[in-house]
Amino acid sequence: MALQKIAFVGLGIMGLPMARNLVRAGYTVTGHNRSRGKVDALVADGGVGADSVADAVADADAVITMLPDSPDVEALLAGEGGVFSHARPGTLVIDMSTIRPDVSRTLAQQGQERGLKVLDAPVSGGEAGAIEGALSIMVGGEQADFDTARPVFDVLGKTPVLVGPHGAGQTVKAANQLIVAGHLQLLAEALVFLEAHGVETGPGLEVLGGGLAGSTVLQRKGEAMRERNFQPGFRIALHDKDLRIVTDAARTSGVTVPLGAQVAQLVGSLNRQGHGDLDHSALLKLVEELSGRKH
Amino acid sequence: MALQKIAFVGLGIMGLPMARNLVRAGYTVTGHNRSRGKVDALVADGGVGADSVADAVADADAVITMLPDSPDVEALLAGEGGVFSHARPGTLVIDMSTIRPDVSRTLAQQGQERGLKVLDAPVSGGEAGAIEGALSIMVGGEQADFDTARPVFDVLGKTPVLVGPHGAGQTVKAANQLIVAGHLQLLAEALVFLEAHGVETGPGLEVLGGGLAGSTVLQRKGEAMRERNFQPGFRIALHDKDLRIVTDAARTSGVTVPLGAQVAQLVGSLNRQGHGDLDHSALLKLVEELSGRKH
Repeated sequence: MALQKIAFVGLGIMGLPMARNLVRAGYTVTGHNRSRGKVDALVADGGVGADSVADAVADADAVITMLPDSPDVEALLAGEGGVFSHARPGTLVIDMSTIRPDVSRTLAQQGQERGLKVLDAPVSGGEAGAIEGALSIMVGGEQADFDTARPVFDVLGKTPVLVGPHGAGQTVKAANQLIVAGHLQLLAEALVFLEAHGVETGPGLEVLGGGLAGSTVLQRKGEAMRERNFQPGFRIALHDKDLRIVTDAARTSGVTVPLGAQVAQLVGSLNRQGHGDLDHSALLKLVEELSGRKH
Repeated sequence: MALQKIAFVGLGIMGLPMARNLVRAGYTVTGHNRSRGKVDALVADGGVGADSVADAVADADAVITMLPDSPDVEALLAGEGGVFSHARPGTLVIDMSTIRPDVSRTLAQQGQERGLKVLDAPVSGGEAGAIEGALSIMVGGEQADFDTARPVFDVLGKTPVLVGPHGAGQTVKAANQLIVAGHLQLLAEALVFLEAHGVETGPGLEVLGGGLAGSTVLQRKGEAMRERNFQPGFRIALHDKDLRIVTDAARTSGVTVPLGAQVAQLVGSLNRQGHGDLDHSALLKLVEELSGRKH
């Protein structure tokens, strides 16, 4: 079955540009959002507006959800008057939010019990990736459903990858957030270390980037960190939420992540200290403070 | 002054192929090593053998040293009968070992007091990089001396970079080793985390490598780590030595490196547990043991 009518719920910083890209690609996109302004923006670009979840999903081949956190997705999908109550049997429900893997698994089971098909498909790449249709998409669920959703994923991102059963997409996203936070913290430690020893960090980062220490974080964030430019990008507040998912999922599976746990604590501290709206590279601020080198 | 006659002291796993590349490039290379066998190997390839440091350096335009650790370099350069006693005034002394930045600074000063020119120029890229002449070279010292040494560096590596004053090369190498160890540990944590949740780690690493979590460590070590192939590569024992340099240098400069300190402890434990001859990616073994998932 080729998908044509798509309900898109959650038209935030990520969701709105994603929905726009689907409109441009020729899909009939019906948008719903808690605040009506975003719906009007989508309608102005050729989408259809819906005032309720029931209206949005009633006629849809697929429902895409893009919401901030696990409780939001649980309420929207399984709650009273939610997607699972109103979608037609056979509808493909694709949650692209970043939430807990165990919640994704539970929701997939509940959806299947109502005759729906469910995928978890969190993304990486941020607002820029959403606008450019260049998101990384990590998908958990069944192969046949992945194949059905593939044309939609190809509009939203570059290389959608099916990484395992329900929840596996969220697990890979969690691992992604663990690694990214760790790489940022290590780069912050290295930068302060180099500065404290009088090294020219421009050439220093150049030579580090060319060897085994190279990383995408260094390429994309190195210069901004040297300049203490912490404009987001990806906000500390969201990374804090994601690292709680990591440490919770690690704990429930008996996995010990020493560096992951420590950087989760540092990101959490930064968030609670009021820096939630800075880019996650602002981990550098903590390293400076711990080293008596406040700017 | 163009360099032509080079004394090369320390013909180990790294030093011998480096000296051979200089012979091939047309330099007159006089080799000295504690054990004579390596000297004979260099002579067989067109080098000159020397039985003592005095003989090796007496007529040299430049002296290159490539030794295991700080005390070795101190003894060879500043010790009785060492390079500083026997080299002609004006000789360029290039230490390419990985040692403590403060030791490099002290040795540079002692050498200058005797009328010598000194550079610290540690490398990254391992035995393969030494053989292929593809090392990353991080140089501390004066611009004029860097310019003089540049043709030699271009034989040994790709992009030599002058990163600051005496000791700065060692500082950048230390930062390199901090980042590399951290990236390996984070990848180990992510792998065990994914495996424990039933994710297919092949596609999982593919999607992680394509996004902000991408790294040279993931590219070069990811598959071997999935297969538990810990053939070196770069040995835990050497990385342990290098991380002691990192934590010592951080402590003396008042810099706090939370992730660096923790991974230094993990590498140290692995070394003391008898795994010093495994590749540094064997950090994965500790994460498995901490997570009750011993292979």
